[in-house]
Amino acid sequence: MATLKDVAARCGLTVTTVSRVLNNRGYISDKTRSKVYAAMEELNYQPNEVARSLSKKSTNTIGVIMPHIRHPYFSEMISNIENAASKKGYKILLANSKGADHKEKEYLDMCTSNRVAGVIVFSSTVKGLEFANSNIPLITVERFVENGTAAVECDNEQGGMLAAEALIKSGCKHLLIISGVSKSVMPADDRLKGFAKVCEERGVVYKAVSTSMNQYNNLEYHALLTGELKLDNEIDGIFASSDLIAAQVLQVCRKMGKRVPEDIKLIGFDDVLLSRLTTPPISTIHQPIKEMAEMAVDLVISSSEGKVVPKRTILPVSYIERESTK
Amino acid sequence: MATLKDVAARCGLTVTTVSRVLNNRGYISDKTRSKVYAAMEELNYQPNEVARSLSKKSTNTIGVIMPHIRHPYFSEMISNIENAASKKGYKILLANSKGADHKEKEYLDMCTSNRVAGVIVFSSTVKGLEFANSNIPLITVERFVENGTAAVECDNEQGGMLAAEALIKSGCKHLLIISGVSKSVMPADDRLKGFAKVCEERGVVYKAVSTSMNQYNNLEYHALLTGELKLDNEIDGIFASSDLIAAQVLQVCRKMGKRVPEDIKLIGFDDVLLSRLTTPPISTIHQPIKEMAEMAVDLVISSSEGKVVPKRTILPVSYIERESTK
Repeated sequence: MATLKDVAARCGLTVTTVSRVLNNRGYISDKTRSKVYAAMEELNYQPNEVARSLSKKSTNTIGVIMPHIRHPYFSEMISNIENAASKKGYKILLANSKGADHKEKEYLDMCTSNRVAGVIVFSSTVKGLEFANSNIPLITVERFVENGTAAVECDNEQGGMLAAEALIKSGCKHLLIISGVSKSVMPADDRLKGFAKVCEERGVVYKAVSTSMNQYNNLEYHALLTGELKLDNEIDGIFASSDLIAAQVLQVCRKMGKRVPEDIKLIGFDDVLLSRLTTPPISTIHQPIKEMAEMAVDLVISSSEGKVVPKRTILPVSYIERESTK
Repeated sequence: MATLKDVAARCGLTVTTVSRVLNNRGYISDKTRSKVYAAMEELNYQPNEVARSLSKKSTNTIGVIMPHIRHPYFSEMISNIENAASKKGYKILLANSKGADHKEKEYLDMCTSNRVAGVIVFSSTVKGLEFANSNIPLITVERFVENGTAAVECDNEQGGMLAAEALIKSGCKHLLIISGVSKSVMPADDRLKGFAKVCEERGVVYKAVSTSMNQYNNLEYHALLTGELKLDNEIDGIFASSDLIAAQVLQVCRKMGKRVPEDIKLIGFDDVLLSRLTTPPISTIHQPIKEMAEMAVDLVISSSEGKVVPKRTILPVSYIERESTK
């Protein structure tokens, strides 16, 4: 691999001059600049970013820690984050915590050691305490943490309200909501809050079912859904707290001979690719994933530059009607 | 942020001694070691990995370049690669090339500058030439490149044969295969080869349709599929070169009043989560994604350590029967 010294030797200049060209420091004539560039080209010289970042306080890398990557919501998020970061000249260091506390801590330490500009955390379990010792910006998505630098969320309560309103409007009388993981703080809790509020105002019967961490980690809800539908034959409207769960509702309904949307109307959450790929396509609450990803990247960059950033940013959601409610 | 000097001051030892503990070099008494660890803990000292990697030829980072992240196949791949890498103590630097030649070149340069241990490339367009100048191991997945270090593939031809055999066995007489992107070398070409071979041997009619780069980039095949099904009313078996396309076949069939599997039998490719989430679930050719990911990571590590690695590794596929062919 060609070094700075090789480049200097090739163009007959000192290492200091070549380094000044590379770092755009001080006065350099156009002729010198061209000479250096030509030598770099000839030798296929790649500046050592590792060495360069030593002189800076941080690298142009953003750490991303998420509990799942194959979950459709997280894969769309990482895709959008990579896109937003790349536009600003930042790279992504990706870590999958699988929701385990100790792995999250470990990855936070890894990010610190690697002098990332900041970390974006999507966590199911992250605790305020874990953040206290860190000196780099920590942006949480869909989770507000007291000690974090900033949080980006969508309006989950509004999402729950929109879903309840849409199901009631389409004539449903017995609702079921598949909500968050029990005994853990999840965005789905606020979705339930909004959903319950509308149901109570309109006097519509609803049942809320929480899921288990095991189901969440394995992306597997068939047994839970079959049990609930067997338990109550009158259910005619379901709000699932993710499109992933909604897709499984479609499968369970088909197995039990219930037609969607004729017998049961269904609304998911997230508006990921999957919701457009099922048969029938799933009506859902649109999360502004692209905008949330861009916002998280901007917050990392701004706070790494020492700017003051909003502690909490909440983006609106919207209802997307597809065939599962028509 | 605490430095090595702070740690040394806190435990009353020299920087050299602390550094020796940190790098596990030379003889250090247990007492000294404990002292240093205690001071590091107290000061929340994070070793500067950027500085440490300067003394090594490469960092423990693997670059991953893929054309899509939100495509279900690639999101499962990245999830499995991250998992395999993490087990070996490696981090992932992720880049989305969106299939653009210039972005792939740019990311390869970025990986070189960042002294990654190696790069895993999933490319739709990568050309042998682009690789020639690189000094780091380049592992391609599902693509063989003459100048690459090593390639990991699945047996695509066998996959095509298995799909044709399964459709014919279940009684299909007029087959349709949705194959790769026209005018580009894709794994789907070998799937077509195997499929055609079996059809010709058995004397079964089949039509092969190629897709466009635009459809591939937008993950959108509805218009193509509707057109083909309208053109030929006798089609009773479809082999789609991805589960993503197969999910759209289900949607188009439903729109056209054709039942799967009663009127049309359907087989996808990849065996990603999506194939288990559609209604009905999709029979598919299983790619050993987990094993391919582990193999790619092992190849990066082995070749970065200077070991001789196989130029080409081809893993077997298998047929998974679900409801779309029953």
